[in-house]
Amino acid sequence: MEISRWVVCGLIGFLTGLIACFIDIAVEELAGIKYRVPIAAGSGIPQIKCYLNGVKIPRVVRLKTLVVKVFGVICSVVGGLAVGKEGPMIHSGAVVAAGVSQGRSTSLKRDFKIFEYFRRDTEKRDFVSAGAAAGVSAAFGAPVGGVLFSLEEGASFWNQMLTWRIFFASMISTFTLNFFLSIYNNKPGDLSNPGLINFGRFESDSGAYNLYEIPLFIAMGAFGGLLGALFNKLNYWLTIFRIRYVHRPCLQVMEAMLVAAVTAAVSFTMIYFSNDCQPLGPEHKKEWRVQLHGNSLFNTPERSVRSLFHTQAGTYNPLTLGLFTITYFFLACWTYGLAVSAGVFIPALLIGAAWGRLFGILLASITPNGSIWADPGKYALIGAAAQLGGIVRMTLSLTVIMVEATGNVTYGLPIMLVLMTAKIVGDYFVEVMSAPVTCLNRIEKVGTIVDVLSNTSTNHNGFPVVMQGADSDEPSKLCGLILRSQLIVLLKHKVFVELARSRLTQRKLQLKDFRDAYPRFPPSRASTCPRTRGSA
Amino acid sequence: MEISRWVVCGLIGFLTGLIACFIDIAVEELAGIKYRVPIAAGSGIPQIKCYLNGVKIPRVVRLKTLVVKVFGVICSVVGGLAVGKEGPMIHSGAVVAAGVSQGRSTSLKRDFKIFEYFRRDTEKRDFVSAGAAAGVSAAFGAPVGGVLFSLEEGASFWNQMLTWRIFFASMISTFTLNFFLSIYNNKPGDLSNPGLINFGRFESDSGAYNLYEIPLFIAMGAFGGLLGALFNKLNYWLTIFRIRYVHRPCLQVMEAMLVAAVTAAVSFTMIYFSNDCQPLGPEHKKEWRVQLHGNSLFNTPERSVRSLFHTQAGTYNPLTLGLFTITYFFLACWTYGLAVSAGVFIPALLIGAAWGRLFGILLASITPNGSIWADPGKYALIGAAAQLGGIVRMTLSLTVIMVEATGNVTYGLPIMLVLMTAKIVGDYFVEVMSAPVTCLNRIEKVGTIVDVLSNTSTNHNGFPVVMQGADSDEPSKLCGLILRSQLIVLLKHKVFVELARSRLTQRKLQLKDFRDAYPRFPPSRASTCPRTRGSA
Repeated sequence: MEISRWVVCGLIGFLTGLIACFIDIAVEELAGIKYRVPIAAGSGIPQIKCYLNGVKIPRVVRLKTLVVKVFGVICSVVGGLAVGKEGPMIHSGAVVAAGVSQGRSTSLKRDFKIFEYFRRDTEKRDFVSAGAAAGVSAAFGAPVGGVLFSLEEGASFWNQMLTWRIFFASMISTFTLNFFLSIYNNKPGDLSNPGLINFGRFESDSGAYNLYEIPLFIAMGAFGGLLGALFNKLNYWLTIFRIRYVHRPCLQVMEAMLVAAVTAAVSFTMIYFSNDCQPLGPEHKKEWRVQLHGNSLFNTPERSVRSLFHTQAGTYNPLTLGLFTITYFFLACWTYGLAVSAGVFIPALLIGAAWGRLFGILLASITPNGSIWADPGKYALIGAAAQLGGIVRMTLSLTVIMVEATGNVTYGLPIMLVLMTAKIVGDYFVEVMSAPVTCLNRIEKVGTIVDVLSNTSTNHNGFPVVMQGADSDEPSKLCGLILRSQLIVLLKHKVFVELARSRLTQRKLQLKDFRDAYPRFPPSRASTCPRTRGSA
Repeated sequence: MEISRWVVCGLIGFLTGLIACFIDIAVEELAGIKYRVPIAAGSGIPQIKCYLNGVKIPRVVRLKTLVVKVFGVICSVVGGLAVGKEGPMIHSGAVVAAGVSQGRSTSLKRDFKIFEYFRRDTEKRDFVSAGAAAGVSAAFGAPVGGVLFSLEEGASFWNQMLTWRIFFASMISTFTLNFFLSIYNNKPGDLSNPGLINFGRFESDSGAYNLYEIPLFIAMGAFGGLLGALFNKLNYWLTIFRIRYVHRPCLQVMEAMLVAAVTAAVSFTMIYFSNDCQPLGPEHKKEWRVQLHGNSLFNTPERSVRSLFHTQAGTYNPLTLGLFTITYFFLACWTYGLAVSAGVFIPALLIGAAWGRLFGILLASITPNGSIWADPGKYALIGAAAQLGGIVRMTLSLTVIMVEATGNVTYGLPIMLVLMTAKIVGDYFVEVMSAPVTCLNRIEKVGTIVDVLSNTSTNHNGFPVVMQGADSDEPSKLCGLILRSQLIVLLKHKVFVELARSRLTQRKLQLKDFRDAYPRFPPSRASTCPRTRGSA
């Protein structure tokens, strides 16, 4: 069983890497062809986070979802929308994990009769964590970042063996991607492209940054937090609006097409009115540096980010950068949450890199000794981190992902400080939490449970179980979490006790009873439980 | 209180970085001067691991220990013993953490009356984790590796906020080291030397490794595990021998001097009889590549490791490498556990790099198409990982440390596989565990507790508390751990219950009662507890 866990993790990593490779090659081959098919919905990261934290989303880890997702993201990225491919990548990893570990597929209607002992929520969730980590790993070439992402966002219970297995899946994933990409690029054995998205190497030989720049970085972090809060607020309103008015599929397709049209129109207008086209030097073979707005249309956004990080001073016109930041900010905000496969990381990085570079250029021009701020690419990196941190509010894992993607630990401290500032500032403005929490007592009336389960306002997938303190003014203690599905199984088997506080020796449910019902539990209304006055 | 935690973590990082910087500069300045003063004992890593896992070692986190340690490691490294400076570095971090967080120093006999709310075992242990992480971070330039080291080796309870704070301390530590070293090297702002020990950058542009090499790597991992098991076994016997016969300080000093003399004699003999001295090219400014054995004497071992990793094929003579591996293996084994400040990481890396490179050379010579194994430095890296993994048996954190120290994620997968193999093989041969475990019941007789506490064979610092299952054949469940000190406080305050199973309402001890006694608890014999027939 322990060995099969490792095998499954290895398989998860391998398949995730393979999918990443497929996406990369497809985008590479199709780049330039206009090709817009808005299918499959959303980033996938929030769904996976929900899944890992116990919120049940129907069909989130089905094979059909995976197939639609992969094609969706290829089309969106190639189509030039303001999206990235990392969210769908993480989702793909999770779907692979759910499929491989369970040994059966609902979409294919096949049960391979293997790994039956993994058909439990805890096991499945652990594997889905591994899949998410493998996805991050493939997306950013950041295996350690992937592990920490899973731990920070997903895992409720953490132990060393689990972490070690997740790390294994991440490593296999980035290796597989790398290996097949190196064959595709006709350079077998060149394993230097660990992720779909890499920032290029930041060389720190000639003065990376100075101590007096750190307050500036922190200020940029605060600005990023502010912009991030604005982004999230706008997106929240948009989502509310969409839920109310854009709920029919045909409307969703129309909205996606509208976004695509507006993106194209804005980009072309900007190209027409600005005049800082770059000559195409012979050294830029694949980096068609046409122009910034052209970039977002003709080029994949990752390349634009890399270009903002690494081209020398004087390449970009400040006015263009400013206009680009504003338009791309609103476009990305509109695009994210659209019914297309999309990631928010890359758009956030691109927005941040643009205003960060603008900041660097302005700094160099207004200070008397401008040459000490020689490298606007550095400010682009910090801006990108600030913007991304302000939107997604991750800390530990994001720092590691950024450090791994830059391939340089030198910028670790500033990135960390920037992400902390962005999170604090962002959290100050936007806070999401629903209160009060619906709790169950350790011994609870059947009637109460049925009420809670059938009430639509408490359609959560798990409920905290609390124990009342000895004194009534003492706060009650958390004993654990009971899942909706477990409650339903208990109700269905009528495991009731006539009198409270008598021992529960009548009939014990085996683990098997829960496993048999997994994962298709009957809805609570179907379980015809008598409204007896007992306790479950 | 939350803010002061962050401040303390920042301080810990800063001071640890400062110490690392001091050690580095001192070794740099003194290298070449013969200077042997064997003071202060051992690596420090085992002690800190013990401390973090609840084993009390007297004076392990005192200021006096720190001062002696720092000077000890400088002298040992400069003196040319087969030791590294990373173990003492980790210990230094832990001592700094314990001192700063408690706001008082026993060595200085001062109480600064600050951070009094941190005077609890859990708080102190969290800070010591942060200190250990800062130490690893400074030693290897591996902040993420440091965090994972703390989590893998130390932390019993893991949460996101704690990890994030530990990461902060690590980052500050590596930054501080880097910053001051850049000033020392007259290149302010050049933050490209993140750790005391770095392996130099592995460029992977031209074919890092191929798929068919992975089985070879795994075989090397197994060999490393074997050698590591041998090393540990020899060291275990040596330790037993030392405990029996070399327990007086004057004998310990004499042994250390003997080791130093033998090291020097062996090195000079080897230099005399081998004849593959390298010409000193103008490009090697600081890398005095005299000769391998000379290296271990005239040069710091880290430089030898770097040289084994990075010089091109044909530099080293296979015969010399073989002889060097054997002699250095036994010297390192003898030196480690000696009463001097010493780390085992660097010697292990050096041994492994030597046999790994030898393996690479042999492979290139016996295979018909030798040029495909062009780079023996790669095999040196894998060998180093295998040997280190075989000795220390760490997995997750060691992989990350190695990846961070090579500055390249490309070798992540082979390093991981090698470390896993080395651990499995090594564990198969040497396993350390004492049985049966002394447990206490949830309700236990006072007499039993006094017996356990005063028995010298159960002089542990904590005891697992178990609950008997309902059936007698059911295994008993672990409820938690109670510390020796907590038991003593309970006994001292005579918190007994006359009848078992009556409720413990008589008198409740406050947290303050435990904190007041902290950390100087009376020995259990001094607490004059009456041998009443009650339950504590």
